[in-house]
Amino acid sequence: MLRSHHCGELRLENRGQIVRLAGWVQATRNLGGLTFIDLRDRYGITQIAFNMDDRAALCEKARKCGREFVIQVTGIVAERSSKNPNRPTGDIEIIATELTILNASKVPPFTIEDDTDGGEDIRMKYRYLDIRRNPVKNKIMFRHQVAWHTRHFMNSRDFLEIETPYLIKSTPEGARDFVVPSRMNPGQWYALPQSPQTFKQILMVGGMDKYFQIVRCFRDEDLRADRQPEFTQIDCEMAFVEREDILNTFEELMQYLFKEILNIDLGSFPRMSYDEAMENYGNDKPDLRFEMKFISPDNLRGKGFQVIDQSECIRGIVVKGIESVFTNKEINDLTEWVKRPQIGAKGMIYIKYSTEGVKSSISKFYTEAELLDIAQTHQAAKGDVILILTGRKSDVLKQLSELRLEVARRYHLIPPDSFKPLWVLDFPLHEWNEDEQRFFAMHHPFTSPIPEDMHKMNSDDHHVIASIRAAAYDLVINGTELGGGSIRIHDRTLQSRNFELLGFSAEEAERQFGFILGAFEYGAPPHGGIAFGLDRVCAVMQGSTTIRDYIAFPKNNMGRDMMIDAPSEIDNKQLKELGLIK
Amino acid sequence: MLRSHHCGELRLENRGQIVRLAGWVQATRNLGGLTFIDLRDRYGITQIAFNMDDRAALCEKARKCGREFVIQVTGIVAERSSKNPNRPTGDIEIIATELTILNASKVPPFTIEDDTDGGEDIRMKYRYLDIRRNPVKNKIMFRHQVAWHTRHFMNSRDFLEIETPYLIKSTPEGARDFVVPSRMNPGQWYALPQSPQTFKQILMVGGMDKYFQIVRCFRDEDLRADRQPEFTQIDCEMAFVEREDILNTFEELMQYLFKEILNIDLGSFPRMSYDEAMENYGNDKPDLRFEMKFISPDNLRGKGFQVIDQSECIRGIVVKGIESVFTNKEINDLTEWVKRPQIGAKGMIYIKYSTEGVKSSISKFYTEAELLDIAQTHQAAKGDVILILTGRKSDVLKQLSELRLEVARRYHLIPPDSFKPLWVLDFPLHEWNEDEQRFFAMHHPFTSPIPEDMHKMNSDDHHVIASIRAAAYDLVINGTELGGGSIRIHDRTLQSRNFELLGFSAEEAERQFGFILGAFEYGAPPHGGIAFGLDRVCAVMQGSTTIRDYIAFPKNNMGRDMMIDAPSEIDNKQLKELGLIK
Repeated sequence: MLRSHHCGELRLENRGQIVRLAGWVQATRNLGGLTFIDLRDRYGITQIAFNMDDRAALCEKARKCGREFVIQVTGIVAERSSKNPNRPTGDIEIIATELTILNASKVPPFTIEDDTDGGEDIRMKYRYLDIRRNPVKNKIMFRHQVAWHTRHFMNSRDFLEIETPYLIKSTPEGARDFVVPSRMNPGQWYALPQSPQTFKQILMVGGMDKYFQIVRCFRDEDLRADRQPEFTQIDCEMAFVEREDILNTFEELMQYLFKEILNIDLGSFPRMSYDEAMENYGNDKPDLRFEMKFISPDNLRGKGFQVIDQSECIRGIVVKGIESVFTNKEINDLTEWVKRPQIGAKGMIYIKYSTEGVKSSISKFYTEAELLDIAQTHQAAKGDVILILTGRKSDVLKQLSELRLEVARRYHLIPPDSFKPLWVLDFPLHEWNEDEQRFFAMHHPFTSPIPEDMHKMNSDDHHVIASIRAAAYDLVINGTELGGGSIRIHDRTLQSRNFELLGFSAEEAERQFGFILGAFEYGAPPHGGIAFGLDRVCAVMQGSTTIRDYIAFPKNNMGRDMMIDAPSEIDNKQLKELGLIK
Repeated sequence: MLRSHHCGELRLENRGQIVRLAGWVQATRNLGGLTFIDLRDRYGITQIAFNMDDRAALCEKARKCGREFVIQVTGIVAERSSKNPNRPTGDIEIIATELTILNASKVPPFTIEDDTDGGEDIRMKYRYLDIRRNPVKNKIMFRHQVAWHTRHFMNSRDFLEIETPYLIKSTPEGARDFVVPSRMNPGQWYALPQSPQTFKQILMVGGMDKYFQIVRCFRDEDLRADRQPEFTQIDCEMAFVEREDILNTFEELMQYLFKEILNIDLGSFPRMSYDEAMENYGNDKPDLRFEMKFISPDNLRGKGFQVIDQSECIRGIVVKGIESVFTNKEINDLTEWVKRPQIGAKGMIYIKYSTEGVKSSISKFYTEAELLDIAQTHQAAKGDVILILTGRKSDVLKQLSELRLEVARRYHLIPPDSFKPLWVLDFPLHEWNEDEQRFFAMHHPFTSPIPEDMHKMNSDDHHVIASIRAAAYDLVINGTELGGGSIRIHDRTLQSRNFELLGFSAEEAERQFGFILGAFEYGAPPHGGIAFGLDRVCAVMQGSTTIRDYIAFPKNNMGRDMMIDAPSEIDNKQLKELGLIK
């Protein structure tokens, strides 16, 4: 070993020991008689002291070590005269007796500090320097913890981690596949898996009964912010279970992760149906760190105000205690905000309820008594503000959901360090797609209806089909969907019927999914599962708004790896071998 | 849960309990008054008894359950009158009171037994049925154990599991890449990694210091038996280490795995240089479960026997104690075996040493005293046989290595259940390729020379270059290479020189590996690593000769997944989106 200890390890107890450290030069300070180097590695920073009087040559050498030089130092652990209480090693320093420069460094293109001066692009290009910074390093280390504790929990529950193939078959249903030409089978292609969905179901048919895998998945989609073409899933499946068993098992996994890693008790997770979530929060992943359930101030109707009376839907939120700061400027700002094309509301009605009475953007059309009645009907108290949107129901729910989140952020209504988990249940099985004039699976085509709605599967009535609820569930924490899953269909006839409802011909279903339909004929057990986005779990646990830094080597919004410069052109020889050019 | 217990769990202590089991019908036996079902799941088999007198309808229903039906049974645990000592649950049975058929099954195309009647192809097509068989199921479960304990060890040693990207850049050096067209960057391609080599080195430059990952790797090579286009590596890298540190760390990993999983003490691993291995065993992964070091019977020379005198190389092995079974038929068989084109020897000389003296295929050319002298010089005792091959040295070493292994197998000279680990060290850095008239990296282009040979790197002499030894090492157990690695180059100048020796132009090196050359300029620490083939580790630990069944969904020799029928044709729409057709 080139070191006896690491740079986060030495304490006063080690005083007098001869030690050897190795790491990167964080900073050099030349104070004349003494020169200090802050030596950094993954574990921390230790101060090295070079004494000009005792060892002039060594001290000269130390002064030449620039930022990010890699050095090895031998010396004696000594108590510091001026201690640094902000650093675990701050009570000691190493009085150097030897110094070896293991590798020099050019001046890095940005500072290796918690707050760096480097922009996104340059940090991505020099990712190896970015990773040396605490904010990135700590996230990558945190991700290791989450993966490790997940595996620990799953192993303790008799789950087997089983690897599934990465070179599989392309299935046009769902997102777009990345594909891989087969050299040995010219004209044929593999696809990279969007998830191991069919394989984990096949494992259930194979009797493996409790499966999990932390596995890479691939989707060739246009990248929105914070989406990656490759991402990692905690993928799980169980046989001989009902929905309740899955919810309990993975509620326990999440409780375990929060307890082990953050020492936080999540408590038991409340549950909410999809319909309830949509009606009350306009959103299938409501953030429950703050309340602001939607209200329906329908008593505004029938007073002659056209905007209200002609509106399909009127919904509002009561924002607690912001009345005093809800100035005209704020009102204008927020109104502009809801009118932005990304939100798309036509306007925003407010009712301010203060000790002086009510003030509102619609005072022209309503008496103060009428407005007061609205406020009181919906449990608004003095100091509160009611915000109301109107229009088509689907628009209003979406817009008001966004407004609710924006108001919470803007007026600091989100308690810090709080975690509010939620199971959302009973999603619709199918979604109608107007463009393609057919149903799409809301979760995926292998999702089972809930037992109560099973009888509707043979209906020919569009409305009956649309009302079928799926045995699907999402786990939401703080408004982020961490994962989702479902009880699967395990009956061949039911699966065929579902493909039919999704517009597959029998031939097409057979061509794409023949192997799983076939598997259902040889003793498929009842089964279900769930998958979590590992990056999202990490980000939510640390209250981070982006997943990118949990990924050691992320790609940018064009799917490019800026460091290695990929994708890139390949040799014609390669294309010829693949039969793609002559 | 659809069950209260699993099928491997119940014992006499559970007598009288009401339990619910679910699983697959292994067999149904109708004995008239009683019908028995052997119910199977991942954990074992439990006998279920249906009594015709007490519950006629239930019994009738049980009789209709065919093989591989999925059923749920409720009943009472009872002591069996005739116990089955070969089964952990063999003392009890369940007296059934309820039976639910969860799913029917067609008659499977092969028997779900340890010894099945199904051929390879049909078992691959119906892999979900094959996985239900103990030999496959147990291997997949064993693999989970190996991966789990590996992670446990690595985590306890402060290694971080860090994921590296799967969509990377194609580099023609090495094996052939699988490539992935980029839709967002038309005309450009990703490659799937043959290993995370450069990324793990970048992580060392990034200060991550102890990295590991159990990771999929991809090689588009023509598939020999027991090679897969995708395979899993235990991939590791450490910074601030010397070769000795890597050897010690991973020797401990292997000792840990064997102890934890098999309760076997491997002891400390002997070491051997590449030259020693080639000279003594003709092989860089010698199987040390048996001795038979090569001998050089050069005292056969100069006696007028042309074949010997004109031969560049004479090498032999002393095979202990087989003289009495080494009949003329055996001699002919083995001679035919070495003359097969796969081995390619021109013939085989033998010297049998018995109580009656020596008998040999070359008695015509040598006196008995001369042959006896050969035998005794090489520590042959009465009862031993010496086998000798002659020819060009490189041929003889290879052929005799094969013969040594074949003789060991043929005459049962391999002690069962023994494990002989070995580190092979000091591989050549480069190998000369006659066809391309250039050096290739024997390990990979990032491998460092050993310190003693560092000065040779700047030589222009072909022979000096060829003599450079690499700081590379392979871990061999029982003649199988489980893994290998090296201390890497961390100096930009040295790395550039190595690319130059490998025939890269400066531009080409920059184009392909510019990012790592660049990284070496910003404080790259000394580092090195190793990678193990997970499948091979599993197979060697269990004395299995094939890796295929450790992989849940393997591909055949044409790279096809027989179950899902991949690769396959894809839609023209997909090819158009990728810009591959108009």
